[in-house]
This record gives sequence, structure tokens and C-alpha cells, in this order.
Amino acid sequence: MKVVCIGSGNVATHFSTAFVAAGYELIQVWSKNQDHAILLADQVGAQAISVEADIDLHADLYLIAVKDDAIPEMVQVLAEVDGLVVHTSGATDLVIFPASMKNCGVLYPLQTFSKTKALDFSKVPLCLEAKNERVLAVLKKIALSLSPLVYEVNSAQRRILHLAAVFACNFSNYLYAIGQDILEKNQLDFEILRPLIMETAEKVQHAFPRDVQTGPAIRNDEQTLSKHKELLTGMPELQDLYETLSKSIKKTV
Amino acid sequence: MKVVCIGSGNVATHFSTAFVAAGYELIQVWSKNQDHAILLADQVGAQAISVEADIDLHADLYLIAVKDDAIPEMVQVLAEVDGLVVHTSGATDLVIFPASMKNCGVLYPLQTFSKTKALDFSKVPLCLEAKNERVLAVLKKIALSLSPLVYEVNSAQRRILHLAAVFACNFSNYLYAIGQDILEKNQLDFEILRPLIMETAEKVQHAFPRDVQTGPAIRNDEQTLSKHKELLTGMPELQDLYETLSKSIKKTV
Repeated sequence: MKVVCIGSGNVATHFSTAFVAAGYELIQVWSKNQDHAILLADQVGAQAISVEADIDLHADLYLIAVKDDAIPEMVQVLAEVDGLVVHTSGATDLVIFPASMKNCGVLYPLQTFSKTKALDFSKVPLCLEAKNERVLAVLKKIALSLSPLVYEVNSAQRRILHLAAVFACNFSNYLYAIGQDILEKNQLDFEILRPLIMETAEKVQHAFPRDVQTGPAIRNDEQTLSKHKELLTGMPELQDLYETLSKSIKKTV
Repeated sequence: MKVVCIGSGNVATHFSTAFVAAGYELIQVWSKNQDHAILLADQVGAQAISVEADIDLHADLYLIAVKDDAIPEMVQVLAEVDGLVVHTSGATDLVIFPASMKNCGVLYPLQTFSKTKALDFSKVPLCLEAKNERVLAVLKKIALSLSPLVYEVNSAQRRILHLAAVFACNFSNYLYAIGQDILEKNQLDFEILRPLIMETAEKVQHAFPRDVQTGPAIRNDEQTLSKHKELLTGMPELQDLYETLSKSIKKTV
């Protein structure tokens, strides 16, 4: 199966590598920036291109992994191809593809990618949506060749997943960062907090977070709560955040 | 070395098991509740007791792992022993021990424990404080026999660690729980979010959270931010939380 990768960022890079590992032929990597295209294309043995007109229109699969606001333009470019065209965006509905396009869908990876960190693609949940059942069946086969974690998810559900991911991933990371700040301000090394962060995530791999909530708020430990608020004197934003989150946790009891 | 464990909760259980695994002799487990004492004592081959007067006053080490507000009473009971007395509380200062007690200190595990989840004790950071250098040296040896992650931390720093842990662990878990709620309300399985939670924690094991922040807020992606706020219509508390956290993240750019 011949694949063209549209984009050269984190998502494009991890997908391309996974496709090659699964035996697909990466024929082209397109990026607005030729240098970026070369960087990824060289890794996966593909041709690097940066001109839209150079895109091979006879591939079997086109993976659009560009910024959300650049998707419509790329869809336009690929409007006439026979191959399967998929985008990888959590926040973009299937209707971004015009009605005339039949062989298209969504292949949304619910995972956080960084170029600097290797990632086991078998741990990437892939959320699928397609124009019709026939295309869905094809897309499912492709997805299962990359990861066993394959889910059928419609556009409305995908928006919800993206929102839940912001809470569970982006916001959690921000709370880790607050931990880092608090420690550094007090000459303590972030290193000391890392095992706790790891265990907190591991705990919910086989349990539900609602069932394993710990800490002073859920215990209604007012003494510790007020000690902590005192420690945050001079940091009104963190004080507010501490109070808001603690109040919410108390309500869930 | 003969150890008496005061307490039978999560911390007492994990410490007792680790002590036994490291070759210490657990001679007694004390708990206010005899049934709880028996449950743990049976696991570690110790005598279960629930009467303070039954505590063997000739042990080498007393581990106090009870609720914070019960610590003063247990310190009182152990005021005259020759053995080393340590408490395990993040929020309790060293001065909880009277001046007359010289052989005492703190052995605070910066980790989240649940009885139902096995935990590799070598991944538990142990934070030490002691009355004097001699005691600290003894405590350090003991700590290193349980875990390689040993840190000297004074009472003021320990309070800070505890605060940072609330943000990085308790509050993060609460954000996972919000993710769970949002998914369940939309007939989506929490399972799909688990790999992302794991990868988010793994990412900061070799990087700093400040350097790997992702998501719509850090990208200033106003379109997604307002879409998400719209999805949270009817959930004013989550809307507020979303806005507060996003604003804070934007400020860090």
C-alpha cells in the first residue's frame, strides 16, 4: 500500500514511522517547509515535497496531519483522488470533506506525541470515522495494522474525547508544572516528585479515578487544607486554584 | 533489627511488607482496631495488638504510621523507649517529638499507596529528617535498605513537598476523574483515555513539565478553547475550571 503523508510534525512523524514499521510504502512526505519534509522523508525513505502540485495523486492512502486550520486547503488538493484520504484531527468533523468525496474518513490518535520521545505505537488508541461502512472496514484494517486499540467514534464523540483529553493530559501536565515551580522555589529537585506522578497514572490503569481519589480534600482534612493555603501566601493564582479544586473534590464525596 | 509498626493503614502496610522483605523482624503491629491489627500482623508474621500498654518497649525501631492527629498520643506512649522512633507524616514537623526524645526522626514516603495495588518499594522516595546527625546516619541506612531514593528534607521542605504532591497527584487524579465523567456522560469508555494518561506521566520522567506542555491553551488556539467551553454548557463548574486552567497556562508562555 502506497502512502502519502501530508505534514511533518509530531503526528505525521509518529504515523509515518508506524506505517513503515507495519510494511507500508511511504512514497511522499509533503510539508509547506521543504526542510521539514526532507527531515521526515529521509527517515522513512520517501520523497520530500513542498509544492502541492507535486503530490502523487495515485497513492492508496493520504494521511493529512497538518494544523487544523490548514486541513480544508489540503482536502481541496486531494478532492479528486481515488485513494483513501483521512485526517487525524480531534477537533475537526467529518463534514470537512465535501459530499463529492466518498473515500475518506478520520484516523484520530488519542495520544500525546513529542518528536524527542519514542513512543510504542501499539499504545496509541486510534479513533475511526468514515464516510460509509465500506470505507470504515478498510480504515479499520489499516488502523489494526498499526495498533490493537481501535475505536469507532463519530464526530460528536471525537470532540468529547478531545475535551476529556485536555483535562486528563494537558491540564494534568500543568499541575505537574505547578509542582515543579513550587519545588524549585524552595530549592527542591523535581526529580523527587517523578515516582509519585508515575504511580498516580499507573493507579488508574486498572481502576477508575473516582474510586482512588486521595488527599486532604477528599478526607475533609481542614487543618491541612488551611496549612496549604497559608503556604501559598503571595501566590494568589495558585491559592485560588488550590481552593477551587479542593472545593470540587469535596463535593464529589 | 526488631520493628514495631504503629498503625495498620496503607502506609503501615506497605512499610511493614518492605521491612520484612529487607530482612527486618516485624515483632508487633498495633492498631486501635484489633481486627485491622490482625490483618496486617498476619501478613508479616507479627503479633497483633490494640492496647497501648502491650507495646513492646524494647524494639529497635518504632514506625508511627497513623493519622496525623493521632501522632501526638503515640509519641507520648513511646517517649521513654531507647529504640528509634519515626513518624511518616508529610504535614507533621519534627518538633512533634518532645525535646527529651533524642532518638527520633521522620521517614516520609512521597508516594501514593493503596492497599489494593502492589507497589515496588524501590520506587518510593523516602524523605528523612532526624534530631541529630548520629540519628540521621542510622535512619539513612535503614531508608537505603528499603529504597535507593533517599532524600534529606527538613520540616519546612517536607511541608512544601506535601503541597506539591497535592497538585501533582491528588489534583491530577481529580482531572482524570473529570475526564472519566465527561466520557461516561457521552457513552464513551474511560478505557480509551488510559494510554494518554500513562504517556503524559511518562513524558515528564525525563523532561520537565514546563517544557512539554501541549494543548489548545499553550498554542493560544482560541477556536478550540471556545468550542470546548461550548461543549461544557450546563456544567458551570467545569467551565470555570477549564477557563481558570487555560488562562493560567496561557500566562506561562
